[in-house]
Amino acid sequence: MFGEDDGMLTVDGVRIDEIVQKTGTPVYVTSYGKLMENLRAYKSAFPNQRLLYAVKANYNLAILKIIQKEGFGADVFSMGELYLALLAGFKPESILFNGNSKSDEEILAGIRAGVKFSVDSLDELYTISDMAIKEGKEVEIAFRVNPDVSPETHPKIATGLKKSKFGIPWEQTVEAYRIAYELPNVIPKGIHCHIGSQILSASPFIEAINRLFDVSAEIQKIGIELEFMDIGGGLGIDYEGTGSLSKEDFSKEILSVFEKRRDEINPELELWLEPGRSIVGDTTVLITRVNSVKRAYKNFVAVDAGFNTLIRPAMYNAYHRVSVANKLNRKNEEVYTIAGPICESGDILAEDRKLPVVEKGDLIAVYDAGAYGFVMSSQYNGRPRCAEVLAKDGEFYIIREREDIADIVGKQKIPELLF
Amino acid sequence: MFGEDDGMLTVDGVRIDEIVQKTGTPVYVTSYGKLMENLRAYKSAFPNQRLLYAVKANYNLAILKIIQKEGFGADVFSMGELYLALLAGFKPESILFNGNSKSDEEILAGIRAGVKFSVDSLDELYTISDMAIKEGKEVEIAFRVNPDVSPETHPKIATGLKKSKFGIPWEQTVEAYRIAYELPNVIPKGIHCHIGSQILSASPFIEAINRLFDVSAEIQKIGIELEFMDIGGGLGIDYEGTGSLSKEDFSKEILSVFEKRRDEINPELELWLEPGRSIVGDTTVLITRVNSVKRAYKNFVAVDAGFNTLIRPAMYNAYHRVSVANKLNRKNEEVYTIAGPICESGDILAEDRKLPVVEKGDLIAVYDAGAYGFVMSSQYNGRPRCAEVLAKDGEFYIIREREDIADIVGKQKIPELLF
Repeated sequence: MFGEDDGMLTVDGVRIDEIVQKTGTPVYVTSYGKLMENLRAYKSAFPNQRLLYAVKANYNLAILKIIQKEGFGADVFSMGELYLALLAGFKPESILFNGNSKSDEEILAGIRAGVKFSVDSLDELYTISDMAIKEGKEVEIAFRVNPDVSPETHPKIATGLKKSKFGIPWEQTVEAYRIAYELPNVIPKGIHCHIGSQILSASPFIEAINRLFDVSAEIQKIGIELEFMDIGGGLGIDYEGTGSLSKEDFSKEILSVFEKRRDEINPELELWLEPGRSIVGDTTVLITRVNSVKRAYKNFVAVDAGFNTLIRPAMYNAYHRVSVANKLNRKNEEVYTIAGPICESGDILAEDRKLPVVEKGDLIAVYDAGAYGFVMSSQYNGRPRCAEVLAKDGEFYIIREREDIADIVGKQKIPELLF
Repeated sequence: MFGEDDGMLTVDGVRIDEIVQKTGTPVYVTSYGKLMENLRAYKSAFPNQRLLYAVKANYNLAILKIIQKEGFGADVFSMGELYLALLAGFKPESILFNGNSKSDEEILAGIRAGVKFSVDSLDELYTISDMAIKEGKEVEIAFRVNPDVSPETHPKIATGLKKSKFGIPWEQTVEAYRIAYELPNVIPKGIHCHIGSQILSASPFIEAINRLFDVSAEIQKIGIELEFMDIGGGLGIDYEGTGSLSKEDFSKEILSVFEKRRDEINPELELWLEPGRSIVGDTTVLITRVNSVKRAYKNFVAVDAGFNTLIRPAMYNAYHRVSVANKLNRKNEEVYTIAGPICESGDILAEDRKLPVVEKGDLIAVYDAGAYGFVMSSQYNGRPRCAEVLAKDGEFYIIREREDIADIVGKQKIPELLF
């Protein structure tokens, strides 16, 4: 939980200045309290549904461990994410292996681990069947289908449009299930879709559910008994701080439709969801230090975190609230633009924000940085990646050590002939 | 140099299939021959000018070493880049430390190493002076000034517009030099600007040169003797394959103006340039393997490199030529869209390209991937970063080993209380 101690931002009772003294800046700081609140709100809103955490949003092992201990399953998108989920203790039967481009190596690893697959193409289906035969295993699958539903979100993260790269085209869905039904060692058990990320209302989900029920009725006619319907992730968070749909209200709207139609297919049909951003997004602040302040065309505050550390503003034009973390008790007086250290004009974290007078050495907090934050970070411009910290009950724990320059040199090698 | 052997792409005489057998995919493969050709073309076009390689474009140590051995200096943008440049053998006096947001730690490292600074703000100037006094050193500086020149390029990489975060505002330039002239331990020696990246004509550079001469005349009046004028980097490359400005023609246009006006300031005034993309861009192909082909709304080819590996198409909507690297002798027959494995609709490497019939297992070559390729890569979606290879005279050398999953787990730690 975020608070204040004499003008200084606190996370679960820990002052930010104590953390940065240990870790340097930039640093991601996660509130254990906020994370638990989100997990419990989901469990209370969806008590009888299966919740798979979307590992891609934040795959720090400590965060995965907390989520796993609360009883969530995992939605993974690569062998790396599968590995991290298993390390964190997720049971294979609670893991769904998603992805539009799985390599043979990844498919083999998933089969050996015993996870379920969301299958994106017939090419992939045949590969899974062939490999499952060789491994002497049976693999439970769903197809990811493309329902052609258009949510109001950034086009780069709208994933269920007809023209998207994801999923089985709608009109090929029944035929795909027919093929799967007849192929050895693959067992179609569910149907899956994902319509996008950072969606702020229930209505596109309801449209997707209705479409999935329509096609599921056709699929049942083949003889397939569907056991689950996975409607993906995508509930947005309130980046602007203006209020948003609660998990309870979201649940009520979704479940009223799902429960009404469930009996058309199977009274035991399970609803699955894959929340990511709405679990971790608002749990974390990125803390970055001011290197200089410049009065130019605008008042530019140059900080030490750029799009190497948090790419969302530069890549998606995303809005994050910011504050001067060591001056929370000062009045907002001037308008500033927060610029990162990267050699590109697009490297702006926040534009035209009214803040207390900013000086060199101040700490800027960027809120709601827990989803698609560290996981998208890079070493661009030769910058080591930063630390991650978990705050809990007045103590803090480094859950990822910061890199140093040796980590940039890393696996490089100058061949002898160039000496 | 890129060639073909029985339909298979070759780089400096090495077949791509031999390389991927050793490194896996994806992999960046750099042609030593092409790199040398670019370096020599620059040296021949600018025989009496100082060429600083923009390390940010590609900081692989082997590539830096080759560039250093050809007599180039280095433009660095962080302590990490400074460290890599020094490791590769660049002499401190040939290094310019650029950047709009340098931390105290970075400034101290630069002063100790004895490099020159391009100073972006008065805050930074004062810090350099204070630290230089403490270190008992004199630091040669230029100001990066903002000439308000508008090149035709992507807005995210147009860096010399009035509203950009970079540089001293034009109208404050003379006053900044006056302050620097009077501050102890900093010696203003040059003037610097950078108008953008991937610029395809000389005219915006000429506009910038003329503006720098205009303000330099004012600066000289203070009593400062300017020794160099650094017009930054920015010459684009021919991503579309339709022909572009040669380094010779670029040089002729630039030098005709520079040499005409040089005597206004100082007959010994040096012209400096900071080429990056135009040195490394076209030296390198990214090779990625086809995991599946799907006939949906479009023909989607799912490959194992996404914007985790090469972010330019997703981030800047950049165009890269592609080919089926193992089918160079086949006719282009069908239109395909090349999609990466990342869980976002924007993860498309190339759209609607006519190619030979593509099948699972084929190798796709993405050309001109040598600049802003690996250096911007991440481990997003839990994907290890790929290898880099140098090909030379029929042999190949791994210049960066591929990461494995252990490198994703990396510096993470689960605190005991979560066990």
